[in-house]
Parts: sequence; structure tokens; C-alpha cells
Amino acid sequence: MTTKQLISEIKKKQSFLCIGLDVDLNKIPKYLLQEEDPIFAFNKAIIDATHHLCVAYKPNTAFYEAYGIKGWKALEKTINYINENHPEIFTIADAKRGDIGNTSTMYAKAFFEDLSFDSVTVAPYMGKDSVEPFLAFKNKHTILLALTSNQGAFDFQTKEVNGKELYKQVLETSKTWESSENLMYVVGATKAEYLAEIRNIIPESFLLVPGVGAQGGNLQDVCKYGMNDSVGLLINSSRGIIYASNGADFALMAAQKGKQLQVQMAEVLSKQFQ
Amino acid sequence: MTTKQLISEIKKKQSFLCIGLDVDLNKIPKYLLQEEDPIFAFNKAIIDATHHLCVAYKPNTAFYEAYGIKGWKALEKTINYINENHPEIFTIADAKRGDIGNTSTMYAKAFFEDLSFDSVTVAPYMGKDSVEPFLAFKNKHTILLALTSNQGAFDFQTKEVNGKELYKQVLETSKTWESSENLMYVVGATKAEYLAEIRNIIPESFLLVPGVGAQGGNLQDVCKYGMNDSVGLLINSSRGIIYASNGADFALMAAQKGKQLQVQMAEVLSKQFQ
Repeated sequence: MTTKQLISEIKKKQSFLCIGLDVDLNKIPKYLLQEEDPIFAFNKAIIDATHHLCVAYKPNTAFYEAYGIKGWKALEKTINYINENHPEIFTIADAKRGDIGNTSTMYAKAFFEDLSFDSVTVAPYMGKDSVEPFLAFKNKHTILLALTSNQGAFDFQTKEVNGKELYKQVLETSKTWESSENLMYVVGATKAEYLAEIRNIIPESFLLVPGVGAQGGNLQDVCKYGMNDSVGLLINSSRGIIYASNGADFALMAAQKGKQLQVQMAEVLSKQFQ
Repeated sequence: MTTKQLISEIKKKQSFLCIGLDVDLNKIPKYLLQEEDPIFAFNKAIIDATHHLCVAYKPNTAFYEAYGIKGWKALEKTINYINENHPEIFTIADAKRGDIGNTSTMYAKAFFEDLSFDSVTVAPYMGKDSVEPFLAFKNKHTILLALTSNQGAFDFQTKEVNGKELYKQVLETSKTWESSENLMYVVGATKAEYLAEIRNIIPESFLLVPGVGAQGGNLQDVCKYGMNDSVGLLINSSRGIIYASNGADFALMAAQKGKQLQVQMAEVLSKQFQ
């Protein structure tokens, strides 16, 4: 999917919501465990109930790998279901991969070709030749970790490197890489005030923003500091939506929570893009 | 496996060789492609031919994920084959994972419980709460990326953070984390001269050293600067061993290449630990 198509979907749905499909078998409704593939059954119900409210789905691969081959199958079924039924929805493999050149190419093939995701999250620690193999795929997007929403972000990401925080160094350096137009960035919502400075470095890029809701980030602040002329934001909510209820009404309640966020987003968009 | 058991195996086998099982279907002997599971068939032959020469096997997960469910099955069969037939061999899932707390726990379960690996490689970018969930598993080891062997290592890892290179900051900070006795580190052989300084920071820890052979690193230099009183080194070779031949003699040639390295290692050990 091209960035243009993504922006067009955002305008059409009046939403820049990404729903994180982080399925934990301990948290889903008990009765689903009787299904042949409980993870996929859960995802299908969530997707059926929320696809009109969001522009992206983001399964975190850890939650699938933890269940071995069954989990990997559920991931494959989930991405296929989205691509077949809602090809207009942007898909993110939240995998946080990154390895030396030829190995990153294998990861890129896994997510872009074998699983047909539109994008994958990648860790920057190993530098240019670990990221460029992902960037080489046309109309696919590489979402680089810049400033994450967890406490550990302060261990290294915010430390000064040559007089500049490491995450800013990551933003600036990565801009110079080949096919950097395929880059997006992960920036946690819990640090909304950082967004203004981030926008100075990467005015055009899309930001994937986790941490609104469960982790304490505020939607209005994120939009105030992070939005650009093309919206430029995907706001992710995982637990806050998919675990809104663990009863038989889980999909309905997920849609309700999703709708609340979408309405707030529509309001912001109507003010910014009249 | 405990570190003590690993050291004991090193002494017994007179080897600190780790063999990287990075199986690329384009590089293995053509006739193996007729097998039901060519990846496992290749690995089994390599393992049967080399298990007496090495103390560790390290499949890089990228090479398995690239083949989807078939690849994941081949990974599962490979680790099971090693654990059943050679339980004394240390196993490394070279996965370079790392995510926020609860998600890292899912990855740890995937590799330590579902697949029963002894260790997993982890990227440090997200800090303490992304690594500690791995460290919490008893008698399992977390191999943190410090200084990698690729060119991109110079993009961020060697940049100065508060007057000290980032990779040194990673070493020092990670030492303070809970259960840090379960930490090992990835340090590329192409920068052997860095090893002396690294040993000042982490005198006791095991180092997993890629880059000997194919990437230009030198075994003698690595041992000179990196060895400690408990050996403290696992030297990895992947392509240099497993692709020594792509004919019917591939396993035999792999054993020959492995043997060359093991002999050199035995020589070093006999000098250092008389």
C-alpha cells in the first residue's frame, strides 16, 4: 500500500486508529478456547466489529510465536483474512526485527512476501545495513523504533549522543538511508511533548504512536504536537480496545471503545482539515 | 543449561565453537530440495557430522520465518533433534528480539518454553524492562547485542553517549539489571581490539562472537583479548562451515571446516589452561 492510499483512507474513515491484535489466551473470553483456533476466532470477531473504525491492524508477533506453530498459523490466517476482506486496511507486523544485511532480507521476505504485511517494525541498534534491506521493498514500509513508550526508553534512547539524544540521532541518520521515503517511526504517546522536536527532524514521515490509553498517553496532546499536513499519525490502541470486555460481548465492547477514539479523531481532523 | 555445564563441555570437547544454522534453500545441495523438509534434512546432516566438534548451535530465526509455517516447523524439529540427541549442546535462538515488558515475556516463553532453547539473542534499544523478562528464566541465558560485526555497528553502537561509546553504556547499564548473571553478550570478531576494554567492564560474562572467517575476524586475536579464566567465549561460524560445499559431501566438508577451527581452539585452550 502506498502512503497516499493510507492518507486517503484516513480522510475517508475520519480515523487514524490502529488496533493492536495482541492476543493472549489468558485474557480472551473463556468460551473461545473451545474453538479450533481460538486466536483467529478472537481476531476475526474483533476485525468484523471494528474494520470500519480503524485504518490499520497491528498484530504483535510475540503473542503468536509464544504459541509455536499454532500461533504462527493464527497469524497467517489473521493477515490473510484482513487482506482478503479489507484490502484497504494498512497492516503492521509489530516484530521489532533487525539483523545483518542478508538476514534482514530474510525477515523482510517473511513479513512482506510470505505474510503480505504492508509494514514491519524494526529496531535501529544495528544501523544502516540492518534496515536498508527492509527499505528496498517497494510500497512496503519500515517502521523504525525511535522513542518507545516504556520506562526502558530512558536507559539508552534519551541519552545524549554527540550532544543529541540517541533517538534524535536515529531519526537524523536514518533520513540519509537509501529509500528512506519508506520509513515511518515508532514514537510513544507517553512523551507527547517530545513530538514537536521530532517533527522538526522528520516533518513528512508517518508516526506510529503506541501508549494512548492503557499506557497513559493523551490523544489531544499527540495530535497537537505530532500531526502534519498529511495527518502523519497512526495512533495504536491494543489492550484498551480488544480487552474492553472478556464476556460474550467482547467484540461489541471493542467496537464501542474503538468508536470513542474514532469520534475524537474525526473531531481533530475536522478542525485541522476543514 | 547452567554456565558451569557449558564450561565443562568446552573443556571436555576442547572447543568453544558455535555453529550457525542459517539455512538458505538457495545455497544447500539441490538434491535435498526433494526431501519433505529440506531445511531439517540439511540441519540433521550437519548436526550428525559436527556435534562432536562444537559446544553450541545457533539457528538464526530469520532463515526459518522466511519460509513461513514450514520454516517454523523445521526450526522446531531442529531444536528437538538437538535436545533429544545432544542435550549437552548449548542452543541459541538468534532472534534479536526485544519489546515492552509483557511482550518480551511472550517472546521468552516462545524460545525458552515452547522451543526449549537455552538462550536467545536480544536487542538492547528498548532498555531494562524489555530485557529483564528474559532474564527472569532460571538456567536460561539472554545474549544481549553489544557490538555487532556489521558495518552499521558504527552508526549508533560506537557513538559516544555521555563520553562513552553506546555499546559500553549497554554493557555497564545491563550489569545492574535483575538476574544479570544470566546475561551474555554479542561482540563481533571484526573488532577484536575492542575486546580488551570490553573485558574490563564485564570480566566474567560469556561473549558470543560472530564474524570469525566469512566476515574477516581472526580467532587468535579474539582469544588474546577476549578470553577469561572460564574461557568466556563462544565463537560462531555459520556460512564458513555449513556451506563449505554444496555437493553431496556438504556434511563431510562442514565437519572438516569445523575440525580446523576446533583444532585451533584446542591449541589455544592447551596453552591457556594447562
